[in-house]
Amino acid sequence: MVTKNQIKLIKSLHQKKYRKEHQLFIAEGVKVIGELLKSSLVLEHIYCTEALNFEVSSSMVSLVSKDDMKKMSALTTNSNCLAVFHCAKEEEVDYNDIVVALDNIRDPGNLGTIIRLCDWFGIRHIICTSETVDVYNPKVVQATMGSMVRVNLVYGDLEQMIKNAADVPVYGTFMDGDSIYKQEFVNKGIIVMGNEANGISKTIESLVTQKIAIPRFGSLQQTESLNVAMAASIVINEFRRINF
Amino acid sequence: MVTKNQIKLIKSLHQKKYRKEHQLFIAEGVKVIGELLKSSLVLEHIYCTEALNFEVSSSMVSLVSKDDMKKMSALTTNSNCLAVFHCAKEEEVDYNDIVVALDNIRDPGNLGTIIRLCDWFGIRHIICTSETVDVYNPKVVQATMGSMVRVNLVYGDLEQMIKNAADVPVYGTFMDGDSIYKQEFVNKGIIVMGNEANGISKTIESLVTQKIAIPRFGSLQQTESLNVAMAASIVINEFRRINF
Repeated sequence: MVTKNQIKLIKSLHQKKYRKEHQLFIAEGVKVIGELLKSSLVLEHIYCTEALNFEVSSSMVSLVSKDDMKKMSALTTNSNCLAVFHCAKEEEVDYNDIVVALDNIRDPGNLGTIIRLCDWFGIRHIICTSETVDVYNPKVVQATMGSMVRVNLVYGDLEQMIKNAADVPVYGTFMDGDSIYKQEFVNKGIIVMGNEANGISKTIESLVTQKIAIPRFGSLQQTESLNVAMAASIVINEFRRINF
Repeated sequence: MVTKNQIKLIKSLHQKKYRKEHQLFIAEGVKVIGELLKSSLVLEHIYCTEALNFEVSSSMVSLVSKDDMKKMSALTTNSNCLAVFHCAKEEEVDYNDIVVALDNIRDPGNLGTIIRLCDWFGIRHIICTSETVDVYNPKVVQATMGSMVRVNLVYGDLEQMIKNAADVPVYGTFMDGDSIYKQEFVNKGIIVMGNEANGISKTIESLVTQKIAIPRFGSLQQTESLNVAMAASIVINEFRRINF
């Protein structure tokens, strides 16, 4: 059972404003919920349209109708379960490792992909402008496939965060940057990834200490740009390969 | 003006079956259409909801109502223009360069991203199983941002195509493969990318001569896998960096 008020609350969590107010977010589907349950995240409640086996107290699980699920779900194709979790606290960023900085990434799929990528390459911290898409956006939660629990995202004044990091090299990709193949990367630094349409903003560009570029091949040279998640994959891989 | 029969034809092009039958496909939005017009693709017609400036004979452009555009469009957010182009002929594959092989990639966004990536890195040929998502799928056309015209996709019996290539190394990513950082890559070979859920099929795996892996970092090591487009970015970059 789910009350009208609960449905109303859950629907409100589709919006950032209410996620922030309630410090709650939703996750859908057995796989994603299962991954989040393995983490330190605190579960509020699970709603299912059929009996499912989750390793939680039965008082935390309610059966609901498909109609009610449809009202609560943020996905176009409804799942058979939806969970409400408490948002994690932002941790302090450790600038003695590689930190990824996101300058207004707007696409939930891109953010989700970048989080999975950071998780794969053992990058723990991502710092973001306040305008960057929210990690608790339902589409981001789905796209991260659970890896959001292993990466710490901190939102705020990106300029100030980078300035506070002091003495750390700040890398940014630009068309006129130096080839990534010619860099002497170290295991420390901030890698800035820019907005999908506008790239890195002027304010953040002024803080970049090393402009880098992914070489473009082929005779035609007409490709405008790589998608930001692909560029992040290539650049982060270059940082990690120095350990080999 | 657009007739009911034209709308019917254009709507039918949302489906692979009819694109194949008519050898036509649709592209939407000023940017994408503009890119395709610069290529050798043959334009059939452009439909716009407002006067737009394309460098084509005015007889090739028709003004249509927003309602008619809505009927023709394959996108959820309709654009102000839609063009119908003739499909390009598949070219012969040149195995003296790097060729990407797609073993049942199903997601249009992933295929679009891989095409952009190949274009960036100067890879001209992609060979695909017949089950791989169609390059002329409207979502793929949008995701490639025009780079589909510079990459040749050949669909068919992937096993046979790889066998025909003879003497060429065949690379595939597997969890138990050898680290990409320890490879002596050459400027020749087939790079196989597998299906999003199931990876590389057994039949194609038996043709792989070099199993490779993207090292995973971090102490937790819980990330299941990288998205196929990210994995492709990292692997293709490793092949191209040997030229530097």
